[in-house]
Amino acid sequence: MKVIDGGVNSPIGFEAAGIEAAVKYQNRKDMAIVYSQKPCVMAGAFTSNIVKAAPVLWDKDIVENSPYGQAAIVNTGIANAGTGSEGMKYCEETAKEAAALLGIPVNSVLIGSTGVIGAQLPIDRIKAGVHKLVEAKSHNREDGTNASKAIMTTDTVNKEIAVELDIAGTKVTIGAMSKGSGMIHPNMCTMLSYVTTDANISKETLNKLVKADVVDTYNMISVDGDTSTNDTLLVFANGMAENPEIKEGTPEYEEFKEALHYINETQAKRLAGDGEGATALIECKVINADTKENARILAKSVICSSLTKAAVYGHDANWGRILCALGYSGAVFNPDCMELYYQGSANSMLIFKDGMGVDYSEEQASAILAEPEVRFLVDMKMGDASATAWGCDLTYDYVKINADYRS
Amino acid sequence: MKVIDGGVNSPIGFEAAGIEAAVKYQNRKDMAIVYSQKPCVMAGAFTSNIVKAAPVLWDKDIVENSPYGQAAIVNTGIANAGTGSEGMKYCEETAKEAAALLGIPVNSVLIGSTGVIGAQLPIDRIKAGVHKLVEAKSHNREDGTNASKAIMTTDTVNKEIAVELDIAGTKVTIGAMSKGSGMIHPNMCTMLSYVTTDANISKETLNKLVKADVVDTYNMISVDGDTSTNDTLLVFANGMAENPEIKEGTPEYEEFKEALHYINETQAKRLAGDGEGATALIECKVINADTKENARILAKSVICSSLTKAAVYGHDANWGRILCALGYSGAVFNPDCMELYYQGSANSMLIFKDGMGVDYSEEQASAILAEPEVRFLVDMKMGDASATAWGCDLTYDYVKINADYRS
Repeated sequence: MKVIDGGVNSPIGFEAAGIEAAVKYQNRKDMAIVYSQKPCVMAGAFTSNIVKAAPVLWDKDIVENSPYGQAAIVNTGIANAGTGSEGMKYCEETAKEAAALLGIPVNSVLIGSTGVIGAQLPIDRIKAGVHKLVEAKSHNREDGTNASKAIMTTDTVNKEIAVELDIAGTKVTIGAMSKGSGMIHPNMCTMLSYVTTDANISKETLNKLVKADVVDTYNMISVDGDTSTNDTLLVFANGMAENPEIKEGTPEYEEFKEALHYINETQAKRLAGDGEGATALIECKVINADTKENARILAKSVICSSLTKAAVYGHDANWGRILCALGYSGAVFNPDCMELYYQGSANSMLIFKDGMGVDYSEEQASAILAEPEVRFLVDMKMGDASATAWGCDLTYDYVKINADYRS
Repeated sequence: MKVIDGGVNSPIGFEAAGIEAAVKYQNRKDMAIVYSQKPCVMAGAFTSNIVKAAPVLWDKDIVENSPYGQAAIVNTGIANAGTGSEGMKYCEETAKEAAALLGIPVNSVLIGSTGVIGAQLPIDRIKAGVHKLVEAKSHNREDGTNASKAIMTTDTVNKEIAVELDIAGTKVTIGAMSKGSGMIHPNMCTMLSYVTTDANISKETLNKLVKADVVDTYNMISVDGDTSTNDTLLVFANGMAENPEIKEGTPEYEEFKEALHYINETQAKRLAGDGEGATALIECKVINADTKENARILAKSVICSSLTKAAVYGHDANWGRILCALGYSGAVFNPDCMELYYQGSANSMLIFKDGMGVDYSEEQASAILAEPEVRFLVDMKMGDASATAWGCDLTYDYVKINADYRS
């Protein structure tokens, strides 16, 4: 596997574009298209929130019931959530417009929206945007980047990635673009993320891979504990690399799995690290837990703790808050038998052992907390299960961004 | 029932004091005593955190296994949590010192600590503090206030209360003092709260009442989602009012229950409203839910949502965040069938109905959100269960306080 300079339209046969449609924001790209020249088998994961945005319901139906997907139309500014039957109608109208222009079935057009909840979409501007997108889409590198920029809301950087791998002598490419910065919490895939590949793989195999991988990637991040109404991960595979079909139990399957995991983990970490107002990515790795589920619960509890997040922002080695977050996680353990380490880019420091703090250097600990990636390692000494979760620090800017989001 | 000007030492036979012991802070009261002239039957509730502070383990043992409690010694500055066997030894030494000076059994002395996790107590200063407390304690009004001030950490106001009620012709008094501002979350009683009464009531009856009431009071508040290692509620009843014993199934039982609930609810709301950095108390009342448990889950989810809390701080009527928080709570409901109201001191506004926002005045909604008590009413239209939860807004000052707590 090799990381290449690329994005969502890097795999063979994929095109993308990002344009200005003035849905809500002015003078910035706010609509994107991802299109495949051939129909794709698809996998997806969607918000666990009971209140699901109209496009989530629309996409879920297509992923579950349509044989293929071929295009995704995404807008920012308005989430099309809390919009009742009117909101569903706008999904259908948008998909119909795109389907007619692209000459593909309506039930192969996916819809994505992100932004404020409750407002209705300006459907005329959306339709005009679809026209511009269909005209602008291309396989060019910069149009992939434009698409990744067009789906940003409070994100500070666009998030795209691509890798190449060899599947039985055939080059296969996987690309992705993702957005997400607030309303991010590990109860599911927690953002908008579009993954494309030219790999030849069955829908069944793709779904199995994606379902298993989401648990350790997008579901292990949190910015603020709020699970959005719009979270969507879509994976498109158009088979145009013409590799021998990837089948479970083969070395090729393992290679593809590893590459897909790299894409998803990288994007998930980028979402967490670009959390609203964040100055640092926080990683908590739990090792030697009794069960995988408990390892996940413990790691997530630490990166979700407001007090731990604020302490990281203040570069304060207040390990008691980490201990506290482990303790209220719901997982059962003996605090006297575990160990906590702070891990910097250059060194690893033991902080807590035998039920109490060890004699460590506050200065060194604070220096680790000042790094852009702050890593906590928790050794439970109970078994051999491990899990890693990612979050970000809690800052003035998080409050500023969210006290003043709509107006 | 009548609210009186009083506090933790208002019931007959109770004494209190608050003094400066320089445990960690200088030039402020940081140790308190609550003492009863006669032994008390006791009830308690303690943190659900696996990592329990030494004083929590100490108190839990006394409440469960000792026949009586007679004094509580509390310090701020250091939480005596994450302190291993050394921390437990300090509880014992403190209790022995107080027991010897007061002439009461060691296993009738409760210990409370709040402050930074991980540091060991300066036991010599603690013991010197116990001497000063035993000397200073009195039934005077101002010493009750001193005690309530001595248990504050980041609290901005001290929190004391007292009520009088008539039990079969005898005047009975209940008093309380509480502290709590950060690391507060509804998985249990979430703070230090000391409730005293001169009522004659059996340990069994008192425990039943307290256990049932905690669920709807201290367990329904959250400041930051972090369940502390030290949360403790202790209720002392010394019987010195000499009322006929309060027994279940009598009108007196109902009156006492109501008075105790008033004390607990008032203190819980004060803790939430004085959350670190808060400018407003947020109340979410869920009515007509299918079950009591779901009503609690829904109400708590709203007051715990960082995005909702930040929107209240910004006076932004961003109801989508409330809808979103209801949706990810874990309770199952149909968003198309519920209603959401904002309730001001003067008016109630319908905001959301039939799956979408109604046409309301943003200006009026924003005015409600600018009140010191912001109330949300959610009508689930599913059954007849209801619950209320309390929290506070998320502000720059919360971040400031917690990025800079230790240093």
